[in-house]
Amino acid sequence: MNRGVLVVLSGPSGCGKDTILHHYLEGREEVFLSVSATTRSPRPGEIDGVSYFFLTEEQFREKIDHDGMLEYACYCGNYYGTPRDTVYEKLNAGIDVILEIEVQGALQVKKRCPEAVMIFVMPPSIKELRSRLVGRGTEDMETVEKRLLKAQEEMKAASQYDYIIVNDLVEQAAADLHAVLRSQRLKTENQKEFLNEVFHYDA
Amino acid sequence: MNRGVLVVLSGPSGCGKDTILHHYLEGREEVFLSVSATTRSPRPGEIDGVSYFFLTEEQFREKIDHDGMLEYACYCGNYYGTPRDTVYEKLNAGIDVILEIEVQGALQVKKRCPEAVMIFVMPPSIKELRSRLVGRGTEDMETVEKRLLKAQEEMKAASQYDYIIVNDLVEQAAADLHAVLRSQRLKTENQKEFLNEVFHYDA
Repeated sequence: MNRGVLVVLSGPSGCGKDTILHHYLEGREEVFLSVSATTRSPRPGEIDGVSYFFLTEEQFREKIDHDGMLEYACYCGNYYGTPRDTVYEKLNAGIDVILEIEVQGALQVKKRCPEAVMIFVMPPSIKELRSRLVGRGTEDMETVEKRLLKAQEEMKAASQYDYIIVNDLVEQAAADLHAVLRSQRLKTENQKEFLNEVFHYDA
Repeated sequence: MNRGVLVVLSGPSGCGKDTILHHYLEGREEVFLSVSATTRSPRPGEIDGVSYFFLTEEQFREKIDHDGMLEYACYCGNYYGTPRDTVYEKLNAGIDVILEIEVQGALQVKKRCPEAVMIFVMPPSIKELRSRLVGRGTEDMETVEKRLLKAQEEMKAASQYDYIIVNDLVEQAAADLHAVLRSQRLKTENQKEFLNEVFHYDA
């Protein structure tokens, strides 16, 4: 069986990777969206194993110590990370896995899994990103400028990724995400099973 | 400006690469399908520069001598090949170029242009290829078996290509061709123009 493809989808804050991903995943079952682990308490309505894997700090640290996290970080006293085991279970079963993570975590995954396909989502321009952040109307100008600066800092990582998807129209961006994932499946190295069948079991 | 992507589409005889390509090209103008050169005489209705570039043997040999052919071969006393100049004109103008050529020529291009994206079209199985060749009803069984043997020989080159497209349903195969081409455009190395704009002209 062909192994699944590990895809890391990342991008600066406000780039819209979440919207693209939900657009892309609609009605698709052949792709697995990885579930993060955290040590923070579940909020009302959150389901263990669906929203997050809820772990104790001890459990989380043990995973870190045994190389069981593909990436992790600590925010406001809580750990967040991507457990290795479920990801590799799916990959070994031939299922593609998407990790939707922020830039620092993405670069950690790249180090631990050099085979990962790294996709970076970017806004069409800084100007457009600013007007999107302003348009939300949920943040004051100071916060908008802070987020913009952070986004520009994060965007410097772009060159470390394999593919760049510009999020201008979400439909196009979702189609682009599909093109990248489909093209991975078509790579000769991922078609060993087919080649084996054609040459050995079929004459 | 981003350079165009050079794509080599090849496959064993009878794999249907021509049908896939025509399906894919319908209504698309952003891709250039390379025109071959030949020393054979034009047939009625053939237009110079559209069907082929019709060259004298002297002209053709001169191109070979000056590294002006990306690949060439001699069949039945006539030369056939892909002139380098028109291909690179388009690539330099940012236009993707597709070369649809047989297996030997494709491997010549790979040597001369290591940046070429190599796509191999294959039938879903040898059994299916046989039944397609038989189904045409245009060839006797001996010819069918000869073509099958040749196809199987040609298929051994599959591992030297970057991508394999299985031609089961032509619509899916054309969509796969699109996915491969689109994904090349999304590669970070092909997005230099965009990155340059975002980081330098837009704050």
